[in-house]
Amino acid sequence: MIKELAEIDIKPGHEQAFEEAAALAKDLFLASKGCIAFRLHRSMEQPSRYRMFVEWETIEDHMIEFRNSDAFVEWRKLCGPHFQNPPRVEHLVIVVEGHNEVARADSVAAE
Amino acid sequence: MIKELAEIDIKPGHEQAFEEAAALAKDLFLASKGCIAFRLHRSMEQPSRYRMFVEWETIEDHMIEFRNSDAFVEWRKLCGPHFQNPPRVEHLVIVVEGHNEVARADSVAAE
Repeated sequence: MIKELAEIDIKPGHEQAFEEAAALAKDLFLASKGCIAFRLHRSMEQPSRYRMFVEWETIEDHMIEFRNSDAFVEWRKLCGPHFQNPPRVEHLVIVVEGHNEVARADSVAAE
Repeated sequence: MIKELAEIDIKPGHEQAFEEAAALAKDLFLASKGCIAFRLHRSMEQPSRYRMFVEWETIEDHMIEFRNSDAFVEWRKLCGPHFQNPPRVEHLVIVVEGHNEVARADSVAAE
């Protein structure tokens, strides 16, 4: 599993419209081959800055399958008008991981 | 729940030593009040760049309790010598989230 990290700066004042569009776009990601999870986060310190994390089974599922799909075109059509500049995209692999058993059980149950 | 995101650039050549130190530091975080989960990710595109995500119950658990604790001093003692420059820290809140049921069950079971 790899994580796509997209850092997205939104035009000031577009925050609510972007979040509504991203809630629709989420389903485009989740319907794509190899997509495991989608999470959009807002920065508390920089309210126009978002971080989108998408978990994919492989990097090819993101960069080849998704990027060449109609779903990618739709996602950019939905959310692109709110971008201040092009998203900065990287791929991450987990190298150290741990969680507290009880808290993690709560966290999963709340999802 | 909030997520601390720390973007950490490591001195070239220190990657393995940093990852070993972070594996020890993980337990300092997880033993701290309000800490739910710890994950360190390496960037595939920029191998000296890491993203550390720490889930906290509240921002005060991170910024007040942890930052003023002996655990914080220990974490910086373990990992600080590998930093190229000071980590860039932000706090994130989830605004949109979704996952595929089957894949997510696998993902949780694998953790």
